Order: sequence, then structure tokens, then C-alpha cells
Amino acid sequence: MAISSNNPALSSWIPAPEGTDFPIQNLPFGVFSDAQNPRPRPASIIGNTVIDLCALEELGYFTNLLPAAAPVFSGSTLNPFLQLGKPLWRAVRQRLSDLFNADNDALKNNTAHCAKILFPLENCSLHLPVHIGDYTDFYSSREHATNVGIMFRGADNALMPNWLHLPVGYHGRSSSIVVSGTPIRRPKGQMQLQDGQPPVFGPSRLLDFELEMAFVTGQGKPLGTPINIEEADDFIFGLMLFNDWSARDIQKWEYQPLGPFLGKNFGSSVSPWIVTLDALEPFRTAAPVQEPAVLPYLQYSGNKALNINLSVFIQPEGGAATQICSSNTKYLYWTMEQQLAHHTVNGCNINAGDMLASGTISGPTPNSFGSMLELTWRGTKPLTLSDGAERKFIADGDTVIMKGYAQYPGNGLRIGFGEVSGKVLPAL
Amino acid sequence: MAISSNNPALSSWIPAPEGTDFPIQNLPFGVFSDAQNPRPRPASIIGNTVIDLCALEELGYFTNLLPAAAPVFSGSTLNPFLQLGKPLWRAVRQRLSDLFNADNDALKNNTAHCAKILFPLENCSLHLPVHIGDYTDFYSSREHATNVGIMFRGADNALMPNWLHLPVGYHGRSSSIVVSGTPIRRPKGQMQLQDGQPPVFGPSRLLDFELEMAFVTGQGKPLGTPINIEEADDFIFGLMLFNDWSARDIQKWEYQPLGPFLGKNFGSSVSPWIVTLDALEPFRTAAPVQEPAVLPYLQYSGNKALNINLSVFIQPEGGAATQICSSNTKYLYWTMEQQLAHHTVNGCNINAGDMLASGTISGPTPNSFGSMLELTWRGTKPLTLSDGAERKFIADGDTVIMKGYAQYPGNGLRIGFGEVSGKVLPAL
Repeated sequence: MAISSNNPALSSWIPAPEGTDFPIQNLPFGVFSDAQNPRPRPASIIGNTVIDLCALEELGYFTNLLPAAAPVFSGSTLNPFLQLGKPLWRAVRQRLSDLFNADNDALKNNTAHCAKILFPLENCSLHLPVHIGDYTDFYSSREHATNVGIMFRGADNALMPNWLHLPVGYHGRSSSIVVSGTPIRRPKGQMQLQDGQPPVFGPSRLLDFELEMAFVTGQGKPLGTPINIEEADDFIFGLMLFNDWSARDIQKWEYQPLGPFLGKNFGSSVSPWIVTLDALEPFRTAAPVQEPAVLPYLQYSGNKALNINLSVFIQPEGGAATQICSSNTKYLYWTMEQQLAHHTVNGCNINAGDMLASGTISGPTPNSFGSMLELTWRGTKPLTLSDGAERKFIADGDTVIMKGYAQYPGNGLRIGFGEVSGKVLPAL
Repeated sequence: MAISSNNPALSSWIPAPEGTDFPIQNLPFGVFSDAQNPRPRPASIIGNTVIDLCALEELGYFTNLLPAAAPVFSGSTLNPFLQLGKPLWRAVRQRLSDLFNADNDALKNNTAHCAKILFPLENCSLHLPVHIGDYTDFYSSREHATNVGIMFRGADNALMPNWLHLPVGYHGRSSSIVVSGTPIRRPKGQMQLQDGQPPVFGPSRLLDFELEMAFVTGQGKPLGTPINIEEADDFIFGLMLFNDWSARDIQKWEYQPLGPFLGKNFGSSVSPWIVTLDALEPFRTAAPVQEPAVLPYLQYSGNKALNINLSVFIQPEGGAATQICSSNTKYLYWTMEQQLAHHTVNGCNINAGDMLASGTISGPTPNSFGSMLELTWRGTKPLTLSDGAERKFIADGDTVIMKGYAQYPGNGLRIGFGEVSGKVLPAL
């Protein structure tokens, strides 16, 4: 089924720069505030113009579309909207597409309304768009799992025996997920400098990023009831860029036998706009062939990967950014639908606003690896930045920036994610 | 500092059975509803009488004590109360102690108020008392970690090298934590029946409980700021019994290298009343000596363990309960204060309503082991129930019941937790 708000021929009466991440075909969802009104409230965006969804709702633009009982966009998160489910997510995006369509000047000509609804991005602050209930991180890139496995266990045992049979995942920390632009404090912790020696305590020496994407869910089913793979898409609202900051030395010492903990939970960064799965449907592509065949509850048909170009930059304090990685979501071995079906097959319940991240997205070539651990091969092959400085891992003052977009063929139209950035502050 | 509401000489004008878990010295916090008013609201309890904290607040009994700006007990969880911090937690408990003291008949003689405030427990339903933001599970019993280590890695490598240096922990799933009495559906999942063979899918064959206690936190510090071990108690509101249901076969196949996931997140059960850390202060006792010495951020002085008697029962469908385990919180090697200091030493933030569980609490003797895995030594030594039936793991229809209490010396006065129970339903 074609989604009409995705029509590449559409244009908006809101001006947008050529090649913007946010054409009228995108219409992502976020939460913003502005200098005059510091109250965070739901928003969308076209070009560099933020659209206040709370104001739109108050002015009646969603009447007969959203439930009349209680406002959906009056709070400081998207959670009430996420609870409504895919038909209303789609209908609201379609309404936005209609309101801002170049052929529809009703709102355009209502300058009083426009003043309440439209805000220049440069005057706005963007906030974490959802209250995240539970956050799960997967490990779904075969290339990443293989690279890490080779480094830690050798080439013969790179992939664990379970890896090709299920999307390995673990629970992460919700409280420390922050929106793009929030500085990240270098963590202190225990690490073992030499095998067999007692641990020492201090600032992490091996601070890393992980290039990931995360999806945000709608309201799931009651505890005890799985979500089948065929219906998984109905529960996926949209996607964000996700930087799973990792302290490799803390992680290495702590993670046996129960998994990563303090090596991860000091902070994770997300991009501010949730790009809907609907907006990304034109960019579905085939995921890697799975061999051996997976168990029936993980089998699917059709194109379930997404062709999203990803890049990572390091920008030293006061310096220019250097691109250090170019990857793509399509490399992921396990799809989002498989992740969600697996997560709930035991009856685990999901709530509106849960976040499920992909794990590091590494591609087949060395420049497509999604972490410093892999890019510098555990520090043995330092990267050189544009100012000539070398990096084995992330230095204090560095800002790590991730960008992502899907590209319509031919016409330059892209569905982008903006960026997720975070500057590393020195340890306390 | 003695806490006056803990005075064992106190008695209440609310009648309570001899040896109740809930004398006036306890005054735990929970959330209840009753047949006339199905709205969940905060509560305390004395004996078998539930005390409606929302009604008490509305009737002015907390005036000049709680913030006037917004009601604290008008919602369906204790989270707003948890955000207020220890001085107000303590003051509210003291106010309850005063209101229901046998020497104070002001409220006792106000029958109109009593009718709005006091409810027989038998007419009430108890609910999950907090909205749990993040849930962390530790692995803090040396005996448990050793037992599991011996079974899976042999006696020579039973404890991992990190175990004596830090309280091993991992993130768990908040969404599937349910209150006592909620049935638990036997999970389905992948398991490997024989090493080297492909996995199969089906209902877990090795369903287990884990006897744990969990503590609930107040509002912590901003992201990036640790909570020192000396101040950790200020952030611990109280404790609950916790059953960390575990599917051993699912867990075994999935947990490498990132830890437990679907083997745990199908459900965890908590007791309905949060017993405050204040009420448990008289039962502080010495924790096991830690050798080798821990790093400075984990060092503490004084008695930080708690002497809480724990027991586990299995009650088959339609049958009588058999006690299968007798343990004690004091066996835990790592204290709650160490867990909280460790959890935040990297800057990880905690919020009001987070839950941190101990891990399985096993003692030194075989009858004190806190899981079927250990009690039956991986199924090799089945338990015999009072009806003659054997159990290697938990069967469909079994109700697992955990109880806990601390005992004042001499006079029979106890500070109890009631129980956490859950019945296992057959897989779908």
C-alpha cells in the first residue's frame, strides 16, 4: 500500500533548503520549546521550521481525527500519541502533509495561526521526545559481532553458537538516555590493566561510540502475549540515530557473566526527531540472507531492511569535524521485526515509548565499522583527523556526530534524521 | 540516631493479630483499591487494616508536613512521595505512628474520618506500588554465585575474577514486574537441548524462581554525578520481596555474551508493601567480611547487612504448601549501599521509583539455597513436596510463595514483608 504523504512530487508552502533532511515527505515527530515558551511540547518539522503540534491541536486542526476526551499533544512527551497506534499515527502525518501542502493555502494565509504554530528552528531547543520506559540494545550486525569476536576470542570462535539463531540482545539503562547536544561526562570505574592483576579505579581510558539506530514502540500487548513477526510493524512508530557510548575498559572487566553494565549506562545519545516507519517505507530493501534458516517465529517475507546512509564524525575541541565512518542500516543481519518478535515471544510486554536499539552497525569494509574499537582495531591502527591528530579512542573535548538519511533516487529528495551529537567532558 | 516510630513499646488503637507482619512499628507503604472505590491509591497498613493515605491527605492530616502545592498521595503510585526524599519519608511515617498510637484517640474517635481512611484488608486489592523506571538486578550472594559457578564452570573457576571486586549486576526489564498474586505464564523460547545441536523452540522445561529482595530508590543526582557510599542510605526508600522468575534453558542458550534476556524478562514478582529502610534499621547486622579489600569507593563502616528471615514455599494446584528454603538477607556479600555506590560511580543517574534487586539470596547450607537450580543441584536431587510429588523445577499450576520478616528479640514483635506469590500458568 502506497502511503500518500510519501509522494515525492509533494511540496510545501513552508520554504525548505534544497536537500533538507526534513522535506514534507518526512514529517518526523519530536518535542521542542522556544525562548518565549520554555514548556516542552510535541512538534514536527519541515526544512528549518518547527511545527507546534500542541498549538495545532488547540486550534482545532486535529478535530475529528484525534480523541476528543483528552488532548494528545499537550504534554511534554509523545507518549500519549504513541499510545494511539499506527492508524492514528498515519492519519496525523497525513493531516500535516495536507495542511502544509503547497496547494493548500488555508493555514498559510492565516497569519495569526501561523504565528502560534510555526517557529524558526534556530530559536528552538529540542528535547528527548519520549519518556522511555524500557530500553533494549541488540547486537544485530554480523560484521560487528564478528569483528569483536575476532578481537576477543580469535577468528575461529568469532560468532557465539547462538548468534545466527536469534537476535542477541540485552536490557540497557533508560534513565541515562539523553537528547543530541547533551554533553557526556567521561565515566570513572573499575578496570583491570593486566590480566591476573587486581583492578584499578579511574577515568575510562578507552571511551568509544557505537553507531546504532533505535526504534520507538507503540503500546504492545498484555504481559504473556507475544507480538508475531507479521504484525511487528504495527508496533514500530519510528526510528532515531543512537550513540551507545561505551567504556571498553570498564566493560571488559565487568561484563562476565551477566553482560554490559557500567561500561554503557553512563549515557546514550539519541537524535531529537523520530522519523516514522511510514516515511521510511520507500527505502525498504533486502536484509542479508539468513543461513542457517531461522526458527519459524523469526521467519519473514519481503524486504525488511532499510537503506539508510549513516556517517560518523569526530570534531575535536575548537577544530573541524573529520568523517571517520560510512555505514548503512541495510547491513544489519537481524531486522527490527525479528527483534520485536523475539523480544516478546516469551510473553515480555512492551509499552508505548520503549526503545529498541540495533547494536553497532558495521558494514563489510574497514571504513564502515561503527565503533573506534573496530575502526582502530583495538587501538592498533589509530585514525588521523583532519588536523593531523591521532585517535585510538575518544578524547576529552571531542564531539562525536552521527548523521543519517535515506535518498530517493534521482531527484535529490532525502528523508533525513538530522544528527545526534555529544561532546565528551573530562572525568570529574 | 534512634527512630522514635521504631520503639518496640508502641502499640496502636487499630487491633492487630499477635505476631502480625504489620505492627505499628512497621508502617510500610503500598497502593490499594477497594470494592467501593476501584481507583488505586497510596496506603499503609497496621495488622489487617489498610490505611488510605490519599484520604488522610485530603482530610488534612499531613497539613504543614507535605508540600501544599500539589497533593502527594492523590495518584496511583508512590512516585511523587518517593521524590520528596528521606526527611519527608520519615516525617510521614512518624505522623502515621502518632495518628494510630494507642495513646492518641483523636482520629480513633472520629468515626466519619475512620470510615474514609480505614479498610479491612480482605476487602482490598493491592497494586504495584511504584511506577518502576529502571530495574537492575545484582548477583550479590557469594554462595549463589559459587553454586552456579561450580555447576557451569567447575569448582576451580566458580567465581569469575571480577566477582570479589565489584557487585556484579545487569539491567533487567521493568515492564514485566508485577505485584504478588499476578499469574505468571510459562514462557516459550529457544533452547539448545544438546551441545552442538541446533536450538528448538517450545515452552521452557526448566522454570525456576530466584529468592531476592529489591530496594526502591528516591530521586538521585543529575546524570554524571555519583552517589557516594556514605550517602547511599539517603536514597534508599525501602525494600520488597522479589521473585526473579528464570527460565534456565532459555537463559543458558541466550546469555553469551551479553547476559540474561528472555530467560528473565517474561515476569518478575514483588510483594505489595514497601517496608521502609527506617523500619529495618533495628535489624542491621554485619555483612560478610570482604577479602580482598574492596576499592575505596566501595568501602564502608558499620553494620550494613539486614537480618531478615526468608522462606520459600511451593504450593501445587489444589494442594498444601511445602517450605523448600530458609535463607536470610544477611548472607549477601555485597550491601545495598555498595550496590548503589557502584551503580552510580560512573555517573549513571537513578530516579524515584527505580528498583535494585539483590540477586538470589543463598545461604551456606543446602536448605538455604534460593533457587531450584541450586536446591535440586540442576535437577539431580529432586525435592519432595508434602504430597509426595517430586520437583526438579517449577511445574504448571505451582504457586511459589516467598515470605520475609525481621524479628525483635524476645517479645515476638516482627517487621514483616507479607508475601510475594505467583502461580505458574501453562504455556500458551
